[in-house]
Amino acid sequence: MSDRKNSAMKNKLTIVKLGGNCMDDEAMMANFIRQFVLLPGLKLLVHGGGKLASGIGSELGIQPKMIDGRRVTDQSTLDVVTMVYAGLINKKIVARLQAVNCNAIGLCGADGNVITAARRNPLPVDYGYVGDPISVNTSLLKSLLDNGLVPVIAPITHDAGGQLLNTNADTIAAVLAAALSAHYEVHLVFAFDKKGVLSDADDDESVITRLSKLQLNEMLAAGTVHSGMLPKLKAGFQALEKNVSSVALTHLHALQDPVHTELVL
Amino acid sequence: MSDRKNSAMKNKLTIVKLGGNCMDDEAMMANFIRQFVLLPGLKLLVHGGGKLASGIGSELGIQPKMIDGRRVTDQSTLDVVTMVYAGLINKKIVARLQAVNCNAIGLCGADGNVITAARRNPLPVDYGYVGDPISVNTSLLKSLLDNGLVPVIAPITHDAGGQLLNTNADTIAAVLAAALSAHYEVHLVFAFDKKGVLSDADDDESVITRLSKLQLNEMLAAGTVHSGMLPKLKAGFQALEKNVSSVALTHLHALQDPVHTELVL
Repeated sequence: MSDRKNSAMKNKLTIVKLGGNCMDDEAMMANFIRQFVLLPGLKLLVHGGGKLASGIGSELGIQPKMIDGRRVTDQSTLDVVTMVYAGLINKKIVARLQAVNCNAIGLCGADGNVITAARRNPLPVDYGYVGDPISVNTSLLKSLLDNGLVPVIAPITHDAGGQLLNTNADTIAAVLAAALSAHYEVHLVFAFDKKGVLSDADDDESVITRLSKLQLNEMLAAGTVHSGMLPKLKAGFQALEKNVSSVALTHLHALQDPVHTELVL
Repeated sequence: MSDRKNSAMKNKLTIVKLGGNCMDDEAMMANFIRQFVLLPGLKLLVHGGGKLASGIGSELGIQPKMIDGRRVTDQSTLDVVTMVYAGLINKKIVARLQAVNCNAIGLCGADGNVITAARRNPLPVDYGYVGDPISVNTSLLKSLLDNGLVPVIAPITHDAGGQLLNTNADTIAAVLAAALSAHYEVHLVFAFDKKGVLSDADDDESVITRLSKLQLNEMLAAGTVHSGMLPKLKAGFQALEKNVSSVALTHLHALQDPVHTELVL
């Protein structure tokens, strides 16, 4: 309760996780950028990589290595995602935001030690250079935000020992939201290519406007949740449990649309 | 004179331009990092791209396009240098510096609007997405430096209208040195794979310890300057003329070696 009371005195910060496959779609990206800059208050953007890394990887002759349907990040794949996420996608987004007078600054987790992570245990299955976040340098992010900058975070972290690590962007968004809740009233928005969580995968209008963990568990048991939604939902509920003020899933072309999914505890 | 007098009151800032082809040589890079962190005072690093971008570009099937022996940066080439310089190389250097407790933060010119540039006039020859620096956001760099961060700058700039631009790293180092001389006593060091400017290209020990513009012009007339040295020397003299306290060319494995080339006006 004390956190809720304190939040009235804190500045509002909106953290948007940009997903979907708009990274390689010029029109979608332009539309998103227009929406993003309209958000009031302080802002921070976390982006994924979409299919661009896979495409460039295969052009470079790097075959995706999978174990039990999950991608393995070997050294070559890590180099590709570092190039594509922290280089190409990150800097294109930053340049686009700068063009509309949004003072964006692109960072990966290694920059300014923003996000340290631990390489995932190689047993029982070694997924390679994949990391789970451990700590966030909130003082640097706060200093940037309070100076009018808009951090744009690529989903690459480091282990503080010189190793870069591939890290899930939904997780990064949730971890940043939780850590920054100590200083701001944080609103976390997962922006993607649907209006929210759908009760009927074939009906884009069947948005569940409020979703509790209990309902999610019922939907999981009934098998009515699209598997692609699970990482976002899991990350979103974790953020909500760690004092993030609100967590929403919404369409990347309508960030402030009243029709969206709001997660509730 | 007044600048020289003021410099006694300013903090010392060493700007190192890392050249040579150590980007794709693990041992050389490790050695350089050890040298770099030993430098006293505030530090900023500008890196080039070496041959890594050409290699990755050709693996992606992008043929280098040349006009009169100069590389043309078309859209595909720009994407590759953005990925390789601002992504792969920049983040690997940052992670390595973080591993030795150097709080590095990797930026390209678009990040925080650090360096805006103008696309080079397409007439008489269109070299594509190549930019020459116009302005430096010294207040952001000063804020980062004064907070203990070490900016690591990739040679990609932007035109503030959404377009990224490929920019010469020697030029970036000189422009940053000149701009930051308003706030710091700036020492600019071009680190590469020779001990300095050589009077005999075949003798690595024939270091010219002090080189004036007059001497350079004499050497140019006599044809005794290696063409690869010219961009560094030109950028270095420009920096010196703009109140940078010292400009040196030295070996990347011996940044503080008393044997090096000092530029003098």
